[in-house]
Amino acid sequence: MREILVIGSVALDTIASPSGYSKEILGGSATYFSISASFFAPVNLVATIGMDFPEKYKKTMKSFGLDLEGLEVKEGKTFRWEGSYVKDLNCAETIETQLNVFAEFKPCLPKRYEKSKYIFLANIDPDLQIFILKKFAGKRFIGCDSMNHWIKNKNRSLKNMIKKTSIIFLNDTEAKMLSGESNMLKAGKYLLSMGPEFAVVKRGEYGAILFSKNFTFMVPAYLLEDVKDPTGAGDTFAGGFMGYLAKMDKISEKNIKNALLWGSVMASFTVQDFSINRFLKLNKRDVEKRHKKFKQLISI
Amino acid sequence: MREILVIGSVALDTIASPSGYSKEILGGSATYFSISASFFAPVNLVATIGMDFPEKYKKTMKSFGLDLEGLEVKEGKTFRWEGSYVKDLNCAETIETQLNVFAEFKPCLPKRYEKSKYIFLANIDPDLQIFILKKFAGKRFIGCDSMNHWIKNKNRSLKNMIKKTSIIFLNDTEAKMLSGESNMLKAGKYLLSMGPEFAVVKRGEYGAILFSKNFTFMVPAYLLEDVKDPTGAGDTFAGGFMGYLAKMDKISEKNIKNALLWGSVMASFTVQDFSINRFLKLNKRDVEKRHKKFKQLISI
Repeated sequence: MREILVIGSVALDTIASPSGYSKEILGGSATYFSISASFFAPVNLVATIGMDFPEKYKKTMKSFGLDLEGLEVKEGKTFRWEGSYVKDLNCAETIETQLNVFAEFKPCLPKRYEKSKYIFLANIDPDLQIFILKKFAGKRFIGCDSMNHWIKNKNRSLKNMIKKTSIIFLNDTEAKMLSGESNMLKAGKYLLSMGPEFAVVKRGEYGAILFSKNFTFMVPAYLLEDVKDPTGAGDTFAGGFMGYLAKMDKISEKNIKNALLWGSVMASFTVQDFSINRFLKLNKRDVEKRHKKFKQLISI
Repeated sequence: MREILVIGSVALDTIASPSGYSKEILGGSATYFSISASFFAPVNLVATIGMDFPEKYKKTMKSFGLDLEGLEVKEGKTFRWEGSYVKDLNCAETIETQLNVFAEFKPCLPKRYEKSKYIFLANIDPDLQIFILKKFAGKRFIGCDSMNHWIKNKNRSLKNMIKKTSIIFLNDTEAKMLSGESNMLKAGKYLLSMGPEFAVVKRGEYGAILFSKNFTFMVPAYLLEDVKDPTGAGDTFAGGFMGYLAKMDKISEKNIKNALLWGSVMASFTVQDFSINRFLKLNKRDVEKRHKKFKQLISI
């Protein structure tokens, strides 16, 4: 088992969904990723928060055993995002984004984090992602995420960054946008041609596809009756995926395929409640139980 | 191996898609179903055509070994449908429907067809589907399909018909519409509560889900670079599914799950060309080869 390092955002989210309204709840890509990954391996988190970040949320994060030495507290307010799923449960409508201290985020890595073999660059400015990558020499397994904003506005930096990673995680809209291909198979091939060894395309309620030079692997998404808030599903997915690989510490076809299953399982929990609330009531046995049910759902 | 019987439409389709335009090509639910099923078991077809039905299409159908004694030729013109996928490759826009002889379709079954153990009631008026069901006493394995038009306009007949079948095939929009549930798992449970032992929900490029009281099984769709014309994919899917079951002649969990794979494989061929053209160049070895590739795509 290896430690895993994530660099991303910690946020206060305000969410409206058909299941209700929740104000200033714990969110952010690094939060979702790390809590998910913590079920598999020790996690070091690098992010920034403001002076107003509630102590109780810090406690929550610590309760998952996260190493928060890299969580920098800055003068100012914490990053806030407000979104709504009232019109479409599968697609967030952004109501408001307040970058606050996140606008000046300059990741500062505790020295000992630099030994990390498994690294996840969550969705931040690709120039920052490149800045972080420069700190790591030698063989690492590096995952990254991005979004439409960077595909449009920092395309060259994004491509330079992706070239240096081992695996890229995008949703289907982003994969089609970045590749300029409307066909999923062509989009997947394009992502690989950019440099990474693996590309994962997340399709929300329809599952995920893993592309690599040697094999392709597809999983549907776990069927749920109660979807309350899809925020963070993608980062939770990546957390389960990278977390499982860090636990196994061997990049093989079998482990990569199984990682896609574990990612799907972790994502299925996230959407069942607001924020990371579902994980507060979850233990490793619950996770293993759902993994078993998921395997039954897709095996002959 | 058992014979399989299908009752549905034989049509002349005019299709526009991003890949081109094809006028008065061979189509119809019974056509797609039976050509697909013919790769697994002998097929008896019941449908009606007009005097204008091209001899070459009859020859094409015979080349797949279909028994056409039930294909009635009526005074008048053949059923015509014109559709376009130019705006959205995943969703047909109907340009024109000319029912012609299909408006008066009163299925006339050759006596020897009444022994059929595997029967597929393709998408026709549910009152006709009930009329057909009355001809069959004793244990049969009966599949059915339907569409939004009948869900809206003949809801009671449709429900009476579904109650008497073994398996229902619907696409996701139809399943949600019929059940009144926007959640797929709830929709699947509702379909089962209507009576059939199995319910298959087809999700187009996202695969299919099979619901039953004892197990649920999901498959993604085979990834393709060349999708030319999705017409008939659903009927081809049902043809592969029912054809495989007729071939095995045993309703077990394993066979049902495998049938979902074979259905997916057959549907993946249909969309690669207009009409049933892809099947003209296809032999059983090609089908087995893709089945093997599909299994690799979804197995750990």
